[in-house]
Amino acid sequence: MAAAARLAARGRPLSRPNPAVGCLVVRDGIVVGRGWTRAGGRPHAEAVALAEAGEAARGASVYVTLEPCAHRAGRGPACSDLLVEARPARVVVGQRDPDERTRGRGIERLGAAGIAVALHDCPASRASLAGYLVQAERGRPHVTLKLATSLDGAIATAGGESRWITGPAARAHVHSRRAMADAILVGGGTWRADAPRLDVRLPGLEARSPRRLVLSRSIAAPGVETLPAPAAIAGLEAVQYLYVEGGAGAAAAFLAADLVDRIELYRAPIVIGGGAGAIGDIGLSSLAAAHGRWRLAERRQLGSDTFEAYRRQGQGQPQDGD
Amino acid sequence: MAAAARLAARGRPLSRPNPAVGCLVVRDGIVVGRGWTRAGGRPHAEAVALAEAGEAARGASVYVTLEPCAHRAGRGPACSDLLVEARPARVVVGQRDPDERTRGRGIERLGAAGIAVALHDCPASRASLAGYLVQAERGRPHVTLKLATSLDGAIATAGGESRWITGPAARAHVHSRRAMADAILVGGGTWRADAPRLDVRLPGLEARSPRRLVLSRSIAAPGVETLPAPAAIAGLEAVQYLYVEGGAGAAAAFLAADLVDRIELYRAPIVIGGGAGAIGDIGLSSLAAAHGRWRLAERRQLGSDTFEAYRRQGQGQPQDGD
Repeated sequence: MAAAARLAARGRPLSRPNPAVGCLVVRDGIVVGRGWTRAGGRPHAEAVALAEAGEAARGASVYVTLEPCAHRAGRGPACSDLLVEARPARVVVGQRDPDERTRGRGIERLGAAGIAVALHDCPASRASLAGYLVQAERGRPHVTLKLATSLDGAIATAGGESRWITGPAARAHVHSRRAMADAILVGGGTWRADAPRLDVRLPGLEARSPRRLVLSRSIAAPGVETLPAPAAIAGLEAVQYLYVEGGAGAAAAFLAADLVDRIELYRAPIVIGGGAGAIGDIGLSSLAAAHGRWRLAERRQLGSDTFEAYRRQGQGQPQDGD
Repeated sequence: MAAAARLAARGRPLSRPNPAVGCLVVRDGIVVGRGWTRAGGRPHAEAVALAEAGEAARGASVYVTLEPCAHRAGRGPACSDLLVEARPARVVVGQRDPDERTRGRGIERLGAAGIAVALHDCPASRASLAGYLVQAERGRPHVTLKLATSLDGAIATAGGESRWITGPAARAHVHSRRAMADAILVGGGTWRADAPRLDVRLPGLEARSPRRLVLSRSIAAPGVETLPAPAAIAGLEAVQYLYVEGGAGAAAAFLAADLVDRIELYRAPIVIGGGAGAIGDIGLSSLAAAHGRWRLAERRQLGSDTFEAYRRQGQGQPQDGD
């Protein structure tokens, strides 16, 4: 199932508005079909994997990160019907589909057709579907807050110099993360100060540059949309993954509104001293209130910089995203 | 030799004013003698290890982190003489002694007596002798700056609340680090605000509480010495390891004076937002000037907190300390 979740990542973010799903067909211990949701959301992962498997799907095991859909759309048949037709021996499902058109019906249809179905609450599947699940459960995109700081938590010198704190490997990593987002947002102050390009400058991925948003009521610029407040992300169409790049004001606004699911922190081994802080006032009432909200999910070295991802903890926050 | 360096750590800091040295005697692949510098500096590591080995030292290999001393003092014989008497086949030395009374003479004396001597520039030995070597080469103690921050680099909330940012495991680790220092220093502001006890509160190590210093020209308190400026550390007697615990002003003063050899950073997985920064203005001229000065030397988890040590890089800065 972890392998299916890795396949699913290939669908992100171009599967929008559909979830990025991964599917594997395994027959006698050999992978005979692999699929992930294609750009625009069709074909679905199961359709791709079953087409690759062909006759070998009969009696095979199918691993799919999300419950196969039960609704027949104009754009293609329901995946649960495709599976019934293909006659695998069993289907292992990584997450139940919260979409009301499916929600359990996909699993029921398979069971009714005599196919063994196992539903797992699989963390890798959940993580690979974070944008879809947060949208379904909370009616807003999954939000990643990116910070790039010195050891002492500064994002710029006191004089405002911020290029560069991190090295080339970390900056390339940021571009790869942008390519996984549906939209990028910066604060109005950052926009005015830096006029950042907010695009993906990685060979072959230039076309992946996401929608650009500015948190502001007043800024107008070509190719940039404005968002008056963090809560307005609920109204964004076809955005599963939002990547917030700062500055300190935008970071604070999203944190204060409790709208950050994941913090991605790049830290350079430098000391700035008296620099500009990474995050503005978030209205913290006490130190005790700050504890227990974040948990280290990933850490790696990028050149001399350290990348760390923290995911939000707490009730109703099962998605860690990636 | 790494094992000898680990033994040496047992001598820190009570070996003062002598260096904390470690020594192993190995005969036919078996350790027959182990020694480290005892409290007050005597007996030396070699004397302890040779006494334990007894007759087995003849023909053995001796590993010692620092060149055996060549000067006969009233407090005991020179270690190079003890070794000549014990007749090992060879002596492996981890670092040359910069003390002018020895500096190569210990090694010469062994060679003249027909004992094979190998001098290694051993990083583990160097690290275990950091306080002694910095004192010999720079005429001041080895300085560790400790910081305990949130993910966004704050050491307190905007309202000044700082207890606690890190958890019990990190705070116990700080106490174990205090026990390895000869003196602890805080800034005047921290002293006035928190009146920290600056002692070692670990079972069995209470007596290890080091000298307490405050960076101030005006504060007077029982049991506390004042230091008017960071440069005054050069005048501290019998201090090989100084542990600077903040606050932001003292941290900045030591960094601005380029008197920090090691940064020990405890980070809690919390966001404060708009809090008090860890380090005040250090007079940084540009971001470029901040790069290349620090390098990650150690990282470990302490409960949910992360401990990282960074050592100073650059010309004439070979000691990483520990």
